[in-house]
Amino acid sequence: MMKLSGQKKDLSIPKTMKAWVLDGPEQLRLTEKPVPEPGPAEVLVRIGAVAICGTDVEIITKGLPAWIQGGPPFNKNFTPGHEYMGTVAKVGAGVDEYEIGDRVAVEIHAGCGRCERCRMGMYTSCLNYGLNYGDQDKGHRANGFTTDGGFAEYAVNHVNTLVHVPEEMSDEEATLIVTAGTAMYGLDVLGGLIAGESLAVTGPGPIGLMSVAVGKALGAQPVILTGTRDTRLKIGIRLGADHVINIQKEDPVEAVKRITGGKGVHYVMECSGAPNAMNEAMDMVNRGGRICLAAFPGEPALVDLAKLVRNNIYVYGIRGEGRSATHRAAALMAQKRFDAKLMHTHTFPLEEVPKAFRYFRERIEDAIKVVVKVH
Amino acid sequence: MMKLSGQKKDLSIPKTMKAWVLDGPEQLRLTEKPVPEPGPAEVLVRIGAVAICGTDVEIITKGLPAWIQGGPPFNKNFTPGHEYMGTVAKVGAGVDEYEIGDRVAVEIHAGCGRCERCRMGMYTSCLNYGLNYGDQDKGHRANGFTTDGGFAEYAVNHVNTLVHVPEEMSDEEATLIVTAGTAMYGLDVLGGLIAGESLAVTGPGPIGLMSVAVGKALGAQPVILTGTRDTRLKIGIRLGADHVINIQKEDPVEAVKRITGGKGVHYVMECSGAPNAMNEAMDMVNRGGRICLAAFPGEPALVDLAKLVRNNIYVYGIRGEGRSATHRAAALMAQKRFDAKLMHTHTFPLEEVPKAFRYFRERIEDAIKVVVKVH
Amino acid sequence: MMKLSGQKKDLSIPKTMKAWVLDGPEQLRLTEKPVPEPGPAEVLVRIGAVAICGTDVEIITKGLPAWIQGGPPFNKNFTPGHEYMGTVAKVGAGVDEYEIGDRVAVEIHAGCGRCERCRMGMYTSCLNYGLNYGDQDKGHRANGFTTDGGFAEYAVNHVNTLVHVPEEMSDEEATLIVTAGTAMYGLDVLGGLIAGESLAVTGPGPIGLMSVAVGKALGAQPVILTGTRDTRLKIGIRLGADHVINIQKEDPVEAVKRITGGKGVHYVMECSGAPNAMNEAMDMVNRGGRICLAAFPGEPALVDLAKLVRNNIYVYGIRGEGRSATHRAAALMAQKRFDAKLMHTHTFPLEEVPKAFRYFRERIEDAIKVVVKVH
Amino acid sequence: MMKLSGQKKDLSIPKTMKAWVLDGPEQLRLTEKPVPEPGPAEVLVRIGAVAICGTDVEIITKGLPAWIQGGPPFNKNFTPGHEYMGTVAKVGAGVDEYEIGDRVAVEIHAGCGRCERCRMGMYTSCLNYGLNYGDQDKGHRANGFTTDGGFAEYAVNHVNTLVHVPEEMSDEEATLIVTAGTAMYGLDVLGGLIAGESLAVTGPGPIGLMSVAVGKALGAQPVILTGTRDTRLKIGIRLGADHVINIQKEDPVEAVKRITGGKGVHYVMECSGAPNAMNEAMDMVNRGGRICLAAFPGEPALVDLAKLVRNNIYVYGIRGEGRSATHRAAALMAQKRFDAKLMHTHTFPLEEVPKAFRYFRERIEDAIKVVVKVH
Repeated sequence: MMKLSGQKKDLSIPKTMKAWVLDGPEQLRLTEKPVPEPGPAEVLVRIGAVAICGTDVEIITKGLPAWIQGGPPFNKNFTPGHEYMGTVAKVGAGVDEYEIGDRVAVEIHAGCGRCERCRMGMYTSCLNYGLNYGDQDKGHRANGFTTDGGFAEYAVNHVNTLVHVPEEMSDEEATLIVTAGTAMYGLDVLGGLIAGESLAVTGPGPIGLMSVAVGKALGAQPVILTGTRDTRLKIGIRLGADHVINIQKEDPVEAVKRITGGKGVHYVMECSGAPNAMNEAMDMVNRGGRICLAAFPGEPALVDLAKLVRNNIYVYGIRGEGRSATHRAAALMAQKRFDAKLMHTHTFPLEEVPKAFRYFRERIEDAIKVVVKVH
Repeated sequence: MMKLSGQKKDLSIPKTMKAWVLDGPEQLRLTEKPVPEPGPAEVLVRIGAVAICGTDVEIITKGLPAWIQGGPPFNKNFTPGHEYMGTVAKVGAGVDEYEIGDRVAVEIHAGCGRCERCRMGMYTSCLNYGLNYGDQDKGHRANGFTTDGGFAEYAVNHVNTLVHVPEEMSDEEATLIVTAGTAMYGLDVLGGLIAGESLAVTGPGPIGLMSVAVGKALGAQPVILTGTRDTRLKIGIRLGADHVINIQKEDPVEAVKRITGGKGVHYVMECSGAPNAMNEAMDMVNRGGRICLAAFPGEPALVDLAKLVRNNIYVYGIRGEGRSATHRAAALMAQKRFDAKLMHTHTFPLEEVPKAFRYFRERIEDAIKVVVKVH
Repeated sequence: MMKLSGQKKDLSIPKTMKAWVLDGPEQLRLTEKPVPEPGPAEVLVRIGAVAICGTDVEIITKGLPAWIQGGPPFNKNFTPGHEYMGTVAKVGAGVDEYEIGDRVAVEIHAGCGRCERCRMGMYTSCLNYGLNYGDQDKGHRANGFTTDGGFAEYAVNHVNTLVHVPEEMSDEEATLIVTAGTAMYGLDVLGGLIAGESLAVTGPGPIGLMSVAVGKALGAQPVILTGTRDTRLKIGIRLGADHVINIQKEDPVEAVKRITGGKGVHYVMECSGAPNAMNEAMDMVNRGGRICLAAFPGEPALVDLAKLVRNNIYVYGIRGEGRSATHRAAALMAQKRFDAKLMHTHTFPLEEVPKAFRYFRERIEDAIKVVVKVH
Repeated sequence: MMKLSGQKKDLSIPKTMKAWVLDGPEQLRLTEKPVPEPGPAEVLVRIGAVAICGTDVEIITKGLPAWIQGGPPFNKNFTPGHEYMGTVAKVGAGVDEYEIGDRVAVEIHAGCGRCERCRMGMYTSCLNYGLNYGDQDKGHRANGFTTDGGFAEYAVNHVNTLVHVPEEMSDEEATLIVTAGTAMYGLDVLGGLIAGESLAVTGPGPIGLMSVAVGKALGAQPVILTGTRDTRLKIGIRLGADHVINIQKEDPVEAVKRITGGKGVHYVMECSGAPNAMNEAMDMVNRGGRICLAAFPGEPALVDLAKLVRNNIYVYGIRGEGRSATHRAAALMAQKRFDAKLMHTHTFPLEEVPKAFRYFRERIEDAIKVVVKVH
C-alpha cells in the first residue's frame, strides 16, 4: 500500500454510495446514499470490511441498543454496523492524527468530551449518550449505534474512534481489533495485573475467545474457558486456553476448583450472558476475586448477592471497549501475540449482507466472525 | 485516666472471668472461664463495653457466619461479640504498639498475613479464614467469629485488630468505631473521592447511618438516606443526611432522580439487604456509577444484571471493615466530625446480655445500638 | 440574584469591553477590545472578580508559561488572568449545562479531548497544549495561558472550565475556588484517602494554605504547616493546621518527626518551591509515603533521589487542578467546610490592576490573595 | 525430581554447614555454622544456587544497606546473599504451602505483617525494617540484609519469601526470578497497563535487562534500551528491546524522541543510577508520563524538578520487588516468555565466592549474572 501524502487532497470520492439501511425490524435494504462529509476532528473512512456482532442482530431485530435522533433506529435511513475497518479517504478540519491513505480500524464510542464521565476518561459511560443531533448535539457518537455505521461504502468517524492498522494485517483480521479491545478493557478494569494470575472465561463467543487470547498474551496462568460447543472450545485452545470445559459434560465450578487445586481463580471474564453465569462466577473466584460482566443477560435472574458481600468480590460491568484499550489491543495484534484470524470463518460481499447475517445468526458451518468485505 | 507505664507489668488480673458462652442455638449461658493469655503480637483487653450487631444475632441463632475450630460455634465454649472496647491489661511478647492502660477499640479481622490476599493488604479476604487452631494454625483471627469475643470480662486481641481510643470518648461511643470503620471502608472501595459527590445510602441500620455520617464528614453532597422508619431517618438527618426518603411514602429511585435533577447519584452504599435493593441501586446511580454492597441479602433475588453491563456500573461487596479504614474512622470520630452517640440507645450490664439481645432484636423502644457495659 | 430563563437570549452585551493586554514584559495596558463570541460548547462570562496568582507574575514578567498562538504572549493583544469568576452572559450552540445568569467560577484547562491524555481524563496533561489557533486548532484551551483570560470585562470559556458558584458565596471568595481545586487535586493524586492520615504542607502560599484547609476538611490528622512568616502560619491555624512550624526557628524535618513521634507523615504537599524542599519532604514522609509537588522550583537543585528508592516513596507533580477536583473543592466551599475568605486580603477595581500586582508582588500589608473586582 | 511426601519428615540434614560470613569490610570468610532451624511459618531451604547482585557488593564493602541486630553487618557472623534458590529441606510449624522437596526461589522481604504498611500490602516498606532480633522481634525479615542469606548450604525463609520453581527451570535461571520480580514490580507501580505502550529502560544492568524482557513480554511497544556497552545492549535486543541506544554514540533523549516521532515514551524504568538519569527520564516521557526509579544514585544530583510539576509526571521509587510481583514474574518465566538465561554468564562453586565476586565487580569476560552453585 502506497502511503499517500498527508495533504488534505481528496481521493476520488463519489457523491453517492451503496449503503444498507434499516427500515422496520428485520428490514435491511440496500440503497444509495450521499457520501457523508467529515467535520472538524472527523475523517471519512472508505470501508474495507465490516464484521457482524451479536449486537447488530439485536439492533436489526429489536432496535435497541441503537438510538438514532432520540429514538429507535427504524425508518430513519440508519446504517448499522460497528466492527469495521478501512482507509482514510478524507480528513476534516484540524485532523493530522490520520492521513489520507492510512488504514484504520474503529472503536465504537466517541464520548461528548464534556460530561462528568468523559472528563474522567470514561467516554463509554458518556452521560450525553445519543445526543448528537441538531440542538442537542453534544458531540457524542457511537458508530453504528447512534450514528451511521459500516454496512456501507463510506462512514464518517471521529478521530477518537480510530486506531491504526499495520500493513501486514488483513482487512478481515482488522475488523476484530475492536473485539480484542473489549477483551483488553475487561482485563484492564479487573486491575490489569493479569500475568501469572488465574483467569476463567465463561462463554466462547467472540469476546470470550478474545478474552482468552488477550489474557494469555498478557501472561495469565491458567486460562480456563467454559462453553457448550467443542468446536469453539478447540479454537479457545489454539488462542491460548490452558483448559477448556464443556459444561454439558462437567460442572464448570467444579472444574475450575479441580484445575486450581480447590482455590478458585483470581478473575472471571463473564462472556456468556447465561442466567446462572453470575452465580457460577461468584463460586469460581476466590475470596477477594473479581468478575467482569461483558455479556448482557437477556432477563433478570436469581442471583445470590450475599456471596459478593461474604467474599469481598467486586463486579465490573463493561459496555464494550473503553479507555483506549482498543489501541493497546491493536498493538498486541500487530505484534502477532495471538492469531485473531482463527475466529474469522466466513466472508461475503456487501451485496450479501442478509446472507451474512443468516450465517451468523444460524451459526451455519460453525460461523463465528462473519465478515462483509466492502472494498 | 492515668497513663500507666509501658513496662510489661500486669495489672491485677484474675485467674478466671465471667463470660457468656454459646451452647446450642439461642442458648447463651453465663459461666466462668480462665482469663486468656496473650501470645506474641497479642494483648489482653479488659472489656469496657460491647455492642450488639445484627451478625451476633445470626451467630446465636444459626451459628453462621462464626466458624470455631473448623465448624459451627455451638457447644464449644465459644464467647461471641465483636464490637467491643476496653483497656489493655497485659501485652504479649514483642508488643510495643500498645501499652498497659491504653484504651482500645477493636476491628474484627486479623488476617493470617501469609496468604495471597493478606500479602496484598486484603486481610478481610484472608484465604485462611478460620484456620487458627492446632495444626492448622495459620494465624487468622476474627474476633467473636473464629475466636472468643467480647461478651466477657477479658479478650485476647492481635495488635492488628486494635485502634486507640481517645480519653474524651465514652466507652459506649467507642464500641461504634468498628461500625464507622465499615462505613469508611465502603466509601474507600468506592474510590474514596467522595467530597462533592452524590451518595445514596439505602437502609438506616447502624452501617447505613454510619455511612451517612462518614460520607457527609468527607464532604459528600447530597447525601440521601432511604428507609422505612421515620425515627431512624430522623437520626440520619442529625448525622448529616441532606435528604431522607421514607420508601413507604415515595419510590426511592424516583426520589433520588428528583433530588438529583434526573441525573442519579455517583455512589450507592447498599446497607439494607432488601431483595430489590440491588435493582434499585442500579437505577439510582448514573452511568459509570458505583455501588457498595455492605448488607447480606437473606436469599437470592431476581437481579437485572444487564443494567450493570449497559451502564458500566461497578459493584463492590464488603464484609465489614478493611484496609485500616477503622483507624481512619476512629480519627474522624476523635475529631468529633459526627455524633456517633446518636446511634446508641440502650445500655445493660454484662449479666443482662439476653435482655440486651431482646431489646436489639425486637427493637424495643426504637433500639439501634444496644451496648453491654462490662467494666 | 434573579435566575434568568435558559433561553439563549442575550443579556445586554456591549460590542466592546475594557481589557488589560500584555505588550512587552511588565507592560500591561488597559485597552478596548471586542467582546468575544462564544462558540459551540462555550459561554461568555461577564467577569465579576479575578484574583492574582504567582503564575500571572511569571507571565507578565517573563512570558512563560503562557503560550499564545504558538509563541510567547507578548504584543499579541493577550489578556492574562486565570483565577476569575462571573456571570454567564451568553451561551454558545449546544450549551445547556449553564444558563444565562448562572454564577460561575473557572478552572484553567480545557483539554483538546482527542489526545491520549485527554481520552484518559488527564486533561491538564493535554498533548495538544496550546494548539487552539487556526489550522492547528485542536480545541485545547487554558484560560489566561493560551487564550484570553480574566483581566477584562468579559471572557469566553469552554463549559469544561466552569463550575457553579452558590449565591451565598461572594465574588471574592469564588475566585479562590480554582486554588482550592488545585489543593484538592493534589490530595486526590496522593490517593485521596486522607482522613485520619498525617499531612505536612510545606509553604504557606495560597495553594499551601488551601492544602491545609482542604486536607483538614477531609479529616487529615495531624495537619502540619511549615513556612517562614508567622502571619501566614497563623492563617494556616485558622484554616485547620494542627501544628505550624516557622522554619526560621525550628528545623522542619525535626519538627515533623517530633510531632509524629518519630514516625514521619504519610503525605507531603510541597507548595514552597524552595531548593531543599524535596530533600526535606523525603525526610518528612515515612517509608512508603507520598509527596505531591505543587510548586515550581525556580532552578535545578541537588536532590538525593536514592531516598525515593530506598524508602519506596512516590512523587507526583501537578500543574494546577485536574480531574474535576475543582468541582469537588467548590462543593466543600459551598458546604462552608473552611473559610477561604481568610486568604483574601485586598481588593482593587479593574482600572488598578498594576497597583493590585504591586501589592501582590511586594506583599504590601501582608497581601495574600489580591482580587480585582470587575463588575 | 521425585516429589516427596508432605509429611514433616526431615531430609537428612547435617548439624552444621559451610557458610560465608562477613567479618570486616571486604572480609568474607568461609566457616562452619549450625544449620538453622525453621520456626512457625518458616522453611529450611537447601541452597541450590545463589547469584551475586550489586547490592551484595555494597554490603560487603560498606555494610549498608544490610542491618543486622540493629547495626552494620560486620563481625556478626552474618551470611549475605539474597538471590538464591534451592529445595525445601524441612518445614516449620503450620506450613503446608510448601512441602519437603519443593524447589523454590526467594524474594527478599517478609514484612512484619503488623505495621501500617504491611497491613496495606506494602511489605517492602515495612516500618519495622530490621526488627527481628530479641525483644524487638516484630517479625520483619529481609534475606541477606537483616537475616542470614544464601552464600551457605542452608537458609531459613519465611513462607512469604518463597515462590515455586518449575522442574524444567535450571537452578541458575531460578536465581533470576527475584530480578524479574523487581522488574515486574516496577511495571506494576507504573500502572501495569503496559501492553501497547512505549517504554524506555535506562541502564542495561540485570534489572534493566529484566525490565526489557518483562516489559516486552507484557506487550510494551516500542521497548527502548539505553546504555554504554554494546554487549549488554545486544542482550537487550535478544530479550525483546525494539531499539537500543548506545548513549556514547547518541543522546538518549534525542534518540527516544526520534524513535517515538517526537512524542516521548509513556514510561521510563530508570535502572542506571546515573547522575543525570532523572533529568533525562523527565525529558523522555511525554506529558502525564511516569518514571520508576529502580536504581540507587550514588550521590545527590542536580535535578530540575520543575519538569515534574509542569508536565504532571509521577515518579515511583522502588526498593526491589513487592506486592507478590515475584510470583507473577516467576509465572512468566515458567511460561518461557523470555530467556532469562541470557543474563547468566558465569558459575562458580561455593568455595569460590571471592572469585565470583571479583568476576562480577570487574565485569571480567563481560560478566552479568554470576552464579554460585552450592548443591
